[in-house]
Amino acid sequence: MEHPKPTFELGFSYRALKMKASVIRELLKLTHRKEIISLAGGLPSPAVFPQKQVAEIAAEVSLTHGEVALQYGSTEGYTPLRDAVAERMRSKGIDVTGKDVVITHGSQQGLDLLSKVFLDPHDTIIAEAPSYVGALSSFHAFEGKVLSFPLEPDGLDVEAVDKYMRCLEESDEKKPKFIYTVPTFNNPAGITMSEAKRKRLLEIANEFNLIIIEDNPYGELRYSGDDIPPIKSWDTEGRVVYLGTFSKIFAPGFRLAWLSAEPRILKKIVIAKQSADLCSNTFGQEITSRFIEKGMLEPHIEKIRNLYSKNCVAMLESLDLHFPKEAHWTKPDGGMFIWVTLPENINAQEMFPKALARNVAYVVGHCFFPDDAGHNTLRLNFSHATEDKIRSGIKTLGDVIKAEIAEKGPVQ
Amino acid sequence: MEHPKPTFELGFSYRALKMKASVIRELLKLTHRKEIISLAGGLPSPAVFPQKQVAEIAAEVSLTHGEVALQYGSTEGYTPLRDAVAERMRSKGIDVTGKDVVITHGSQQGLDLLSKVFLDPHDTIIAEAPSYVGALSSFHAFEGKVLSFPLEPDGLDVEAVDKYMRCLEESDEKKPKFIYTVPTFNNPAGITMSEAKRKRLLEIANEFNLIIIEDNPYGELRYSGDDIPPIKSWDTEGRVVYLGTFSKIFAPGFRLAWLSAEPRILKKIVIAKQSADLCSNTFGQEITSRFIEKGMLEPHIEKIRNLYSKNCVAMLESLDLHFPKEAHWTKPDGGMFIWVTLPENINAQEMFPKALARNVAYVVGHCFFPDDAGHNTLRLNFSHATEDKIRSGIKTLGDVIKAEIAEKGPVQ
Repeated sequence: MEHPKPTFELGFSYRALKMKASVIRELLKLTHRKEIISLAGGLPSPAVFPQKQVAEIAAEVSLTHGEVALQYGSTEGYTPLRDAVAERMRSKGIDVTGKDVVITHGSQQGLDLLSKVFLDPHDTIIAEAPSYVGALSSFHAFEGKVLSFPLEPDGLDVEAVDKYMRCLEESDEKKPKFIYTVPTFNNPAGITMSEAKRKRLLEIANEFNLIIIEDNPYGELRYSGDDIPPIKSWDTEGRVVYLGTFSKIFAPGFRLAWLSAEPRILKKIVIAKQSADLCSNTFGQEITSRFIEKGMLEPHIEKIRNLYSKNCVAMLESLDLHFPKEAHWTKPDGGMFIWVTLPENINAQEMFPKALARNVAYVVGHCFFPDDAGHNTLRLNFSHATEDKIRSGIKTLGDVIKAEIAEKGPVQ
Repeated sequence: MEHPKPTFELGFSYRALKMKASVIRELLKLTHRKEIISLAGGLPSPAVFPQKQVAEIAAEVSLTHGEVALQYGSTEGYTPLRDAVAERMRSKGIDVTGKDVVITHGSQQGLDLLSKVFLDPHDTIIAEAPSYVGALSSFHAFEGKVLSFPLEPDGLDVEAVDKYMRCLEESDEKKPKFIYTVPTFNNPAGITMSEAKRKRLLEIANEFNLIIIEDNPYGELRYSGDDIPPIKSWDTEGRVVYLGTFSKIFAPGFRLAWLSAEPRILKKIVIAKQSADLCSNTFGQEITSRFIEKGMLEPHIEKIRNLYSKNCVAMLESLDLHFPKEAHWTKPDGGMFIWVTLPENINAQEMFPKALARNVAYVVGHCFFPDDAGHNTLRLNFSHATEDKIRSGIKTLGDVIKAEIAEKGPVQ
């Protein structure tokens, strides 16, 4: 039955009038055909989902503790899970207890709640360019304005932030509400902020009374080089809000992540979460908590690292073999992404249908810039596709790029 | 280790500065002692959680379909679950397909997303007094202003709404963004809106171009009387947004509910949900979907109805036996709550510690009024406590109320 199209006038909020469907999301819809090799998306590999372990634990949780696991839980989260998260954070050098942690429905919810409690319309946020697009959309949904600062090979250009803050002191403009950074193996570029820059950024935040949101979904997925401590590990004033997630180290299907912050911020986050969804799903929290308790998480992360590390090597080798000399790309020590920069006269969005016609997909890079810069960039994911598909996908994409460069000629 | 208390100045948003911890939540914290008979809260009974069935289905889902169930899902929700929800809605007279449904993290998230896409600061909302406190807190979080209209024994005073809208036409004031109602066995009062009033409310909405949010968590929990169709079943213009939930008919621990609306609204809701948490937890969605597919949901609801129906009768019998003649209460045909009105000179919040000292707890009624009215009212829950505890809790509470009335003397 065909419904009549509603025609009455709707009174959306000002923020909703400005909401647009995500470009990435629309592009990703085109990549679902079976024959497409998708290097787009940002999905973990289902090859390392702990299906058998989850099956056993889920059954155990429901049978032996269902009266709690199937009930509403506290807004802050399931206490044993909060404690386990705090213990893992302490092992990375962050001095917290379970009371300093709130369990959220994905780090995306953490970003949404932070936007809700910090952002008034036209408030500004300091962020790397390129930045995680989901963060940009949360800030945008609360009418925040993102100020882009360059992402250098060793991370955010912190001196540019310092310079900006100094100039601001002499102006009437409002101070940024926070600095948003993915310092380790960032999405989309795979770049890691050096230890020196981390300390310097914190120094700047302390001097100018700024909050840092340290979003660290990929920190445990290191394949080479030495760990660099999180920014929050040097935070003596409580001004770093830390976001971690189980989506990349366990499974995304539970939508579980965590946010740790100083008490005043955490209190507002809890009130905001209460009106947002009351609490995170209890069943998933108990499963995750027991998975950790049974000692299964660390070997599982090791398994993920082994797989992604091989995929990363395969992609880097294929890029060397098949991409033209005019293209440049990052060589990440971990995470899930490689960032490609093409000659200035190539437009990655215009090239996208041509790649799709050859059954290979990527994410156009300009989505990750708040100001639509980066038209000649693209993001490649190496966690989801198999090694074979990565090799053949990169070969095809190399051909597509070479053809595009031949067509456009040299940069004027 | 004792952390230094953070002292730097925080730049919270205007909305966050006005956020307050929920009074109910603070009171509920006091009711967790083992010896307390809690008639507060709004929890389903764990006695009817389908622990064995969930254990089997969860294991099956992870083993046989884990590559999907443990992965990210679409923002709109798991397609088979959306289809199953639509089919159940059609059986209640609402003409929808799965495409008209979005799965949310609880109806609380539905309310939060609706507030996000509809409310600018100072926008108004028409609501029943008393109203569901979680809805009030969502509206409040987006700086909406709730206009209270009386709740009569047969539901919202719709003629008062009509009168208000007519007066408004002659003024400069902004039109309300929507009408919020829990028309069936409402929380907190257990009152149901008559069929005549439902149709009249829709007529008013059509005439004045208003959206109705029909929040129906309890509709399937009827213990006596005949079903009344949802308001949305008569909606020919697409102006009723319908909220349903699995929390009361399956289990709250998955945090799964749904929102159905006309396409333009649904599109904004999906964009808003994407930046709020990307998608609802896939694992819980698959479990719920299979629970329905296996034909387990209808017999399970029957089991819930049988238990709560007995509890409801037990509470009504005990109220007749033990409450003083000065108290009045609703006689609900379903749902989870009974609403008590005490003499004008009794303050339910002042009386609360006295009840707690006697090991019985309720929710003070004024929390459900946006304007702190209803000081002499309280809400009783009959779904969570056992029949024995309900009887002994009401007996004790009757004594507490009688003592309070004796102390305060007759109403002046």
